Amino acid sequence: MNNCSTISGYLIQQLSTHGVRHVFGVPGDYVLGFFHELQCSKLRVINTCDEQGAGYAADAYARIAGLGAVCVTYCVGGLKLANTTAQAFAEKSPVIVMSGAPGTNERSRSPLLHHKVRDFNTQLKVFEQLTVASTVLDNPHTACREIHRVFNAALRYKRPVYIEIPRDMVSVPVSLDNIPDEKLELSDMNTLNEALREAGHMINTSKRPVIIAGIELHRFGLQKELLEFVENTRIPVVSTLLSKSVMSEHHPLYLGVYGGAMGREEVIRYVESSDCLILLGTFMTDINLGIFTAHLDQGCSLSVTSEKISIRYHSYEDIRMEDFIRGMLKINICRRKERGRVHPPLAPPDFIPGRKITIRHLYQRLNSFLEKEMVVIADTGDAMFAAMDMTIHEETEFLSAAYYASLGFAVPASLGVQMAKPELRPLVLVGDGAFQMTGMELSTIARYHLNPIVVILNNRGYGTERYMRDGPFNDLTTWEYSRIPEIIKSGKGFDIKTEDQLEDALCAVRDYTEDFCILDVHIDQEDCSIALQRMTKALKKRT
Amino acid sequence: MNNCSTISGYLIQQLSTHGVRHVFGVPGDYVLGFFHELQCSKLRVINTCDEQGAGYAADAYARIAGLGAVCVTYCVGGLKLANTTAQAFAEKSPVIVMSGAPGTNERSRSPLLHHKVRDFNTQLKVFEQLTVASTVLDNPHTACREIHRVFNAALRYKRPVYIEIPRDMVSVPVSLDNIPDEKLELSDMNTLNEALREAGHMINTSKRPVIIAGIELHRFGLQKELLEFVENTRIPVVSTLLSKSVMSEHHPLYLGVYGGAMGREEVIRYVESSDCLILLGTFMTDINLGIFTAHLDQGCSLSVTSEKISIRYHSYEDIRMEDFIRGMLKINICRRKERGRVHPPLAPPDFIPGRKITIRHLYQRLNSFLEKEMVVIADTGDAMFAAMDMTIHEETEFLSAAYYASLGFAVPASLGVQMAKPELRPLVLVGDGAFQMTGMELSTIARYHLNPIVVILNNRGYGTERYMRDGPFNDLTTWEYSRIPEIIKSGKGFDIKTEDQLEDALCAVRDYTEDFCILDVHIDQEDCSIALQRMTKALKKRT
Repeated sequence: MNNCSTISGYLIQQLSTHGVRHVFGVPGDYVLGFFHELQCSKLRVINTCDEQGAGYAADAYARIAGLGAVCVTYCVGGLKLANTTAQAFAEKSPVIVMSGAPGTNERSRSPLLHHKVRDFNTQLKVFEQLTVASTVLDNPHTACREIHRVFNAALRYKRPVYIEIPRDMVSVPVSLDNIPDEKLELSDMNTLNEALREAGHMINTSKRPVIIAGIELHRFGLQKELLEFVENTRIPVVSTLLSKSVMSEHHPLYLGVYGGAMGREEVIRYVESSDCLILLGTFMTDINLGIFTAHLDQGCSLSVTSEKISIRYHSYEDIRMEDFIRGMLKINICRRKERGRVHPPLAPPDFIPGRKITIRHLYQRLNSFLEKEMVVIADTGDAMFAAMDMTIHEETEFLSAAYYASLGFAVPASLGVQMAKPELRPLVLVGDGAFQMTGMELSTIARYHLNPIVVILNNRGYGTERYMRDGPFNDLTTWEYSRIPEIIKSGKGFDIKTEDQLEDALCAVRDYTEDFCILDVHIDQEDCSIALQRMTKALKKRT
Repeated sequence: MNNCSTISGYLIQQLSTHGVRHVFGVPGDYVLGFFHELQCSKLRVINTCDEQGAGYAADAYARIAGLGAVCVTYCVGGLKLANTTAQAFAEKSPVIVMSGAPGTNERSRSPLLHHKVRDFNTQLKVFEQLTVASTVLDNPHTACREIHRVFNAALRYKRPVYIEIPRDMVSVPVSLDNIPDEKLELSDMNTLNEALREAGHMINTSKRPVIIAGIELHRFGLQKELLEFVENTRIPVVSTLLSKSVMSEHHPLYLGVYGGAMGREEVIRYVESSDCLILLGTFMTDINLGIFTAHLDQGCSLSVTSEKISIRYHSYEDIRMEDFIRGMLKINICRRKERGRVHPPLAPPDFIPGRKITIRHLYQRLNSFLEKEMVVIADTGDAMFAAMDMTIHEETEFLSAAYYASLGFAVPASLGVQMAKPELRPLVLVGDGAFQMTGMELSTIARYHLNPIVVILNNRGYGTERYMRDGPFNDLTTWEYSRIPEIIKSGKGFDIKTEDQLEDALCAVRDYTEDFCILDVHIDQEDCSIALQRMTKALKKRT
């Protein structure tokens, strides 16, 4: 068991206290001492093929469990996490990034130690750009306070933080005396009451309000409150692509994903003709807004985020989002008669033996294949856009990097998700381009006996880009993806060109739960989802 | 053909002028316009599976061709290059890192565009830490001057630079008027003459001088000068691990690699008993010095690097390394009678059918397998340490990241090397841990019909770390590496457990030149090179 009177012991204890049970990473000599301490603790070390995989897994873990952790060595490990940490920053996922480092006793006169870049602070300076707080635990007198400070920042802002552990500090005793009491930030009650009164009036005097439920409801644990508000008021709800599955998509008041020109006609019409837009925790990103093809009238908007609360053209300060949303449950908001129009679930399609598979057929079929305790993880590209209209059973059963849009998230994310919540079976939707970046993490998935279903949309290149500007740089070497299980000696592979082959594979996959499955679905290069067609048309104008 | 009156045209022209013929990268929407321009130019775009692969390939290309280039999209691409750029910085490899970015016209009011992290300058700020110069080409009036400035920095310091191209700037016309004339830095002649006189006297009055030839001789193109100096004076030479192959290792005056406790007894003895150490372009890194087990007496050292010239305990400023080394060819240094003791090439070992293969046997056999126009690329770990005593035929036929020591360099480096110099056939030596990080770039290698021989030291985990501190985190899932050609549909695989299987594979490999070969060499977990045994003993003391 770990000893919480050392720097490493205290750090491990804090991870544990905040619900972290797994640490993803790749070891290296500057961090071996700390890895040893992790191994001896009740945390489980999950080591991936590459640091990139560990970073994505920790991000996904944070999205499910509320906090994630990744641990690597100095520079050669840490700098490989720059992109995954940037993703966690952009999409508000609280990840504790931990890195070993040369000992404080080795640093004097700045010798040329291996893994050093410009000076011993290079990695720290890089992570200052990518996190909301960072620290080097080089002082046992302040270490506990520093650990508290950065953990609080991660939890307060739901963004990544950076902790560097010089290797000679791992076992240094710490003083537990000077840990400050947590100061809870409070809303100003007068401001809150005025804002709530105005919001209530605005909603009650509107004819057809609609809620645009954003990702912060998920990140700040306000999904129950959303549901209660919706069921009390019967105001219908849309989500954004980033916040998809913020509530069950089978709920009768859920209308679908709104995303400007990307989305379904009827959802666009409903939202854009509303006279009261209630934006809860919603990021106005370009992809969420269909590359700014959305037409949302600020003159009839109420927007509540962790950064700002605004009604029409004015804003309120000193109000916490949580207090505002909980406050909305207490004020008098009239109950509507109108029920939202139920988003009709896509029907399971007929299949015709020998008929070539299309993206449309694939997604219709996958949609009816979905069941409770299945989580859809969509990688960037058409794998994600096509998934927009899938009907997700329960809340938080859809994950994607729909704002930052980095390729290669989905496969390692499934590792993070299943560690965080083993009863969920991931359905991973990933293009061949993204798969070639991080697909080797299937070997990590096999090692820990997880069982995601990985569906590769194989169109032999970067399909999304072909629609914007084509060239040989969008082509990729084709792999025999369905034979990867032979290399890793785990899992089952399926090669799918026709509708009946998909049918057979899905039957087999449902029964085969002891291990991962990989479905290589061959798609025509010209084929793409309707959402992507609309989306790339909008993007193309700007290239 | 490219039009050099636009920003992209001018940038492409400058790359070409400085000998760049290939640009490695992965496209993305913010950089598609520039990729299109690259594609239309005489440069060749080489797209890799992941940006990490492109970064390593460009670094290796720079080491062979004198300048390398990589081009990616904003943040989701660029930040994946943080580690490879840090390696290029640490090991002085001049790489032009180019990234697309949101257009200047899209940035006002800071909208949430996809791929953005904290603000539009996040990526620039990260790369300021990892490069010697950086610029955003957002102004057509200064663009050419800026391109010159960063190219000059890359070439002057032999380190990476960063160029960001907002996507609306790609086709903007530039003015070619205000490009300043290059100012050649000159040495101060009085200082140079005094330093040369003192150096000459020091060498001529010594009994047994030795040259420690460092990596900067290679980076600054001074290998011919080294050879001339050696042959004029008959002073024997050692290299460091980082600079291995700075001259042909068959040269009678070449003694071997010096690396403190890591190295061969006789080389250590020769160097450490010398009364005049001539360090030319040598980095005093921990790995070069065998984790500081080296005993080099500053009181009898003459050290010449691009950063500093010093004799014993004093130093000279305002002298360019090139001028000093060329100056040493002109002053009177007496010719020694003693010939260096020829480093005996390892004899081709006997093989016994059925006998289990060991690292010792493998490297002995590979050493005799080497021939002219074969370049050894060793990944970090025992793959590199064991290669220390191989005898390299010609100069610049050994590559490794022997200072920065990042895993995963070797496979993508072989892509870079063969693009830079197609007549070289790479012999890639890589541990299974490193291979699992970037091995998928074999698919890129297949696409471009290159033919490296990839030898995997398969000990099912991070062998080097096992010697420092073992734990389950050092274990990896084993892959059937020799069957990877079945997935990629190119190349030939060999599964090797015994000495005769190695023999057969090497025969086949020598004849099979149209494609890559992969040799999965199964090594006992306890087996390791003598160099590693010594090295890890030294490292262990410091963990």
